[in-house]
Amino acid sequence: MFDILHRVGMKASLDKVYQALATPEGVAGWWTTETTGDRKAGGMIKFRFTDGGRELGVFNMKIVELRPNTRVVWEVVDGPAEWIGTNVRFELKQEDDFAVVLFKHEGWREPAEFMYHCSTKWGVFLQSLKSLIETGQGQPSPNDVKISNWH
Amino acid sequence: MFDILHRVGMKASLDKVYQALATPEGVAGWWTTETTGDRKAGGMIKFRFTDGGRELGVFNMKIVELRPNTRVVWEVVDGPAEWIGTNVRFELKQEDDFAVVLFKHEGWREPAEFMYHCSTKWGVFLQSLKSLIETGQGQPSPNDVKISNWH
Repeated sequence: MFDILHRVGMKASLDKVYQALATPEGVAGWWTTETTGDRKAGGMIKFRFTDGGRELGVFNMKIVELRPNTRVVWEVVDGPAEWIGTNVRFELKQEDDFAVVLFKHEGWREPAEFMYHCSTKWGVFLQSLKSLIETGQGQPSPNDVKISNWH
Repeated sequence: MFDILHRVGMKASLDKVYQALATPEGVAGWWTTETTGDRKAGGMIKFRFTDGGRELGVFNMKIVELRPNTRVVWEVVDGPAEWIGTNVRFELKQEDDFAVVLFKHEGWREPAEFMYHCSTKWGVFLQSLKSLIETGQGQPSPNDVKISNWH
């Protein structure tokens, strides 16, 4: 199994960062504006991505764990074949005046080229999360930073 | 062993991207302004990072392979303990009007928190490479985008 790892830190309270990860409204501010679903463990959350009105993809995830100010874990139930069965994990901790997010998209079956792309793109979206928290303005899809011919 | 993976694409010729990876002057435009050394396989290349005049770190790498418009590989000889013995690899290919870079920092012995940080930071620097190639202006250290309390 192969994992995508990232670490970002932002000057904010853990609670503010946690809310941006644990609620559909929060995630809509930095990953994709079309985020809908539940706000409790065991529930489902759906993410839809478009570009110029064209649908790029839809991800359905089960909310596996929501531990306030500590951890958010999703399990990919439906989406790109490479993603199904993988987990997306955010671990939170305070360091000095920074809220630190340790991110892991874990359980890829192989390091396909799509994994390279998703790794860079997760980094872009975590910078969007940092921007949302620190400035009030993220860059969620469809206004996300494009990194290549694969968007 | 664990690897950091990234994929970026830029509207440019392969040769232009290759030159930014294969020469000290090229790398100075997107990774760190203090890049010095050789331009042939078997030689050495040195990267120095500072912040506000304070030295953050120095990396010495052996140039393992330089294959024009195709591949650049460095082996870390000296630097942070976690990096020593790892390889940094750039594979290039053309797709439509994009030069695509598949990046791999391979051979980490464990997924330490520093690896999470370096993964995100490599993504930031590859965006800097894309910016250098497409606009003529990268964001190399010490003017790189800061992502956390770890810079």
